[in-house]
Amino acid sequence: MAHPAILQPDPAVMSRRDEILKQLKKRVPDTVFITDEEGRRTFETDALTAYRCMPLAVALPGSTEAVSAIMAYCWENDIKVVARGAGTSLSGGALPSEDSIVVCISRMNRMLKIDEDNRVAQVESGITNLAISQAVAPRGFFYAPDPSSQLACTLAGNIAMNSGGAHCLKYGVTVNNILGLKLVLVNGEVIELGGDYLDQPGYDLMGLMVGSEGQLAIVTEATVRIIKMPEIARPMLLGFPSSEAAGACVAAIIGAGIVPVAIEFMDKPAIHVCENFANAGYPLDVEAILIVEVEGSEEEVALLLERIAEIAEDHELQHKRISQSAEESAAIWKGRKSAFGAIGQLSDYFCMDGVIPLSRLPEALLRVAELCRAYGFDVANIFHAGDGNLHPLILYNANEEDELARAEACGAEILKVCVELGGCLTGEHGVGIEKRDLMPFQYTEADLVQMMRVKSVFDPDWQLNPAKVFPLSARELL
Amino acid sequence: MAHPAILQPDPAVMSRRDEILKQLKKRVPDTVFITDEEGRRTFETDALTAYRCMPLAVALPGSTEAVSAIMAYCWENDIKVVARGAGTSLSGGALPSEDSIVVCISRMNRMLKIDEDNRVAQVESGITNLAISQAVAPRGFFYAPDPSSQLACTLAGNIAMNSGGAHCLKYGVTVNNILGLKLVLVNGEVIELGGDYLDQPGYDLMGLMVGSEGQLAIVTEATVRIIKMPEIARPMLLGFPSSEAAGACVAAIIGAGIVPVAIEFMDKPAIHVCENFANAGYPLDVEAILIVEVEGSEEEVALLLERIAEIAEDHELQHKRISQSAEESAAIWKGRKSAFGAIGQLSDYFCMDGVIPLSRLPEALLRVAELCRAYGFDVANIFHAGDGNLHPLILYNANEEDELARAEACGAEILKVCVELGGCLTGEHGVGIEKRDLMPFQYTEADLVQMMRVKSVFDPDWQLNPAKVFPLSARELL
Repeated sequence: MAHPAILQPDPAVMSRRDEILKQLKKRVPDTVFITDEEGRRTFETDALTAYRCMPLAVALPGSTEAVSAIMAYCWENDIKVVARGAGTSLSGGALPSEDSIVVCISRMNRMLKIDEDNRVAQVESGITNLAISQAVAPRGFFYAPDPSSQLACTLAGNIAMNSGGAHCLKYGVTVNNILGLKLVLVNGEVIELGGDYLDQPGYDLMGLMVGSEGQLAIVTEATVRIIKMPEIARPMLLGFPSSEAAGACVAAIIGAGIVPVAIEFMDKPAIHVCENFANAGYPLDVEAILIVEVEGSEEEVALLLERIAEIAEDHELQHKRISQSAEESAAIWKGRKSAFGAIGQLSDYFCMDGVIPLSRLPEALLRVAELCRAYGFDVANIFHAGDGNLHPLILYNANEEDELARAEACGAEILKVCVELGGCLTGEHGVGIEKRDLMPFQYTEADLVQMMRVKSVFDPDWQLNPAKVFPLSARELL
Repeated sequence: MAHPAILQPDPAVMSRRDEILKQLKKRVPDTVFITDEEGRRTFETDALTAYRCMPLAVALPGSTEAVSAIMAYCWENDIKVVARGAGTSLSGGALPSEDSIVVCISRMNRMLKIDEDNRVAQVESGITNLAISQAVAPRGFFYAPDPSSQLACTLAGNIAMNSGGAHCLKYGVTVNNILGLKLVLVNGEVIELGGDYLDQPGYDLMGLMVGSEGQLAIVTEATVRIIKMPEIARPMLLGFPSSEAAGACVAAIIGAGIVPVAIEFMDKPAIHVCENFANAGYPLDVEAILIVEVEGSEEEVALLLERIAEIAEDHELQHKRISQSAEESAAIWKGRKSAFGAIGQLSDYFCMDGVIPLSRLPEALLRVAELCRAYGFDVANIFHAGDGNLHPLILYNANEEDELARAEACGAEILKVCVELGGCLTGEHGVGIEKRDLMPFQYTEADLVQMMRVKSVFDPDWQLNPAKVFPLSARELL
């Protein structure tokens, strides 16, 4: 049975399925279609596996022209389209509807141009995040945003969700690292925005496109900013007797005007699971750790680590270890980056993604703990502390009836606390289907109406990635 | 006589002028109205003085409620509205039309909140750029974007134009430093976007608003990011035997992965005028100088200056001087920041604002020189070299008949060269009225149509800041 959040399919489309697939195959060049049930099953969910729905068909186009032909056909025939990269969305952003064609961009993964003089690379949007960095690494560059799923996730998905990652504290999120886009509008028209430079004349449609969750257009190519690798980068582990002390230390580091590359936070449950998995040498006798990474020349790094350690000393520092080798650094990061996977081996979890103002970090952690206790759930906290982006993992048992529903309710309460503290509902995972119905806690009716009007400009019949971002009832406000 | 670029006024509005002013004064609270000819004359132009047009009336509201009441009245009565900050626009962005009410936000200049724990300040949008930094300076913070007009220009104008400044190389332009906005829509409705955090759920309407040149709404309040002052900041002067060598040095510094706070470029004509004005100790025997500023702790600064000097040695470095005192640093920056004023005392000038990919800098400078020579104009170049944002100043004589028209034609050719080299029409001054008719060189019809559709969502009857950004004939494409 479909989750109640999913829209009922359009019977007019469902009854024409065979005809639609026949026409599509005839009209669209350079595309693999998956129409059999077994093949489509891979696409019925993304990383938010609680929601499932089988699409009408899946298209794997090989070129912008193919995407354009699919969109034009669907436009003429009132068929919904759900864009998909690698399907790693944690908010159900790539969940199909029964009457939709999934356009999966993952075959379009070529590196088109590396221009190191202008520090840009031009790629097809289906390239994986990590593949961009790997392609430019021999020339001494990297692509900065680094979601934990970077081995699998596509740039197209990063653009849809405005993804971040541990290193976004210094280098910004996706929108700060994209210079140009080629995209296909709902009617099949192809437009280009931006270019090899930072600002652009006219309205910032490119910025609008980044983070629009596949609801305004499908991005097929992008020009990204590539950054020169630092001489060295070195992480330091800091252990504290309480989450509050660690949280206050983060605020003090940032308040001192230091911008490390990353400040990651783990509480005790997370430390134990990750240490067990990665043997990273995390201290087991502390309540919370920070992984603080700095970079630059050897001298700059030494200076920065010293200043950070001094600040930590003022916050009940219990344990300090500076990585002494590339292997040790890799192990420290392996623990952090595999955290979700490691926890997933022990328990089902529901990963939240709220943002709070940095000064409210200790208070936010206390209230998350209280809420989870009240609902009877264990919680593990692993997150990007430097920019206040919380990721509480609510641990639940999917085999117990009603536990998912209760975990969802607990998660919603946590996100409301984030908004109440002056923060917001999502840092980097997007609204998707998961947080759709929480949007009115963040925004007034007038705010939502303006967003929906903008959507209607790009997608007048709301055919693109249906039932996401806005509460289903909100459309009546238009 | 009005410049031909200005729209003819709506006779229905012109004939009702007295009635409109009477109604406005009755309905709108907390507002100073300027209706006499002498008073209005101050508002007939901005810093692009070649264009002049007297507005119907000028309103100086004192609150968001007042702005809302003005907008609601104008909406009901089909009257155009031109928002204005300090009127420092270099692209004619605040030029009124004869049938418009100018809403000048400069009385709304209060600092509402300074929250140093979260590194944000909340202000009314009419506050001047420099006043924000002055207000937070006692607590050790500053507001990063620093246009040369920062003493006069308002944050509202900075938001409209997405302004930059010398320090945006490290800290980004306005859009990277704004976290939240309160704004009044064309019908008087008030909405809020963003908040005390970096990302936000839903579409990025806030990013869309920044740089929309007063055509989508009027911003009345903003939450800005404030940045901790570095321990020290120190500029270095580097002199070169040719503009090409200086340009290549800029590309090499950035290519090495160093991000100074600022890299400013001046060619020989600019050096001589500025040195004469500011006695900054600029070398007079070189063809071009770079002002490179770095910041951090004493040790970090020393390290960075050394690395930059090494790179410059490989590019025919002819002169090097590191500032030895706060006074010397201030003089170096005074020369740069007063450059436009200093040149303005000697000649009329037309300041262009194009962007080119950094690797094309030497080529761009050559072609600008060639074009100006062909038109018979002298040119001075002073610009933000680190991000490829050129500001050629075309020196002309306003008293010679047709010289302005020829300077405009020469400027248009320069901007077309920028686009041809892979860059764009404007870095930080905006499109305004000046570059409106060049937009089709940058964008296809489909691109422009999408922008205009977005405008129509916010401003269905195109009442806000009329005749800017889009060619007058483009609206027929909608």
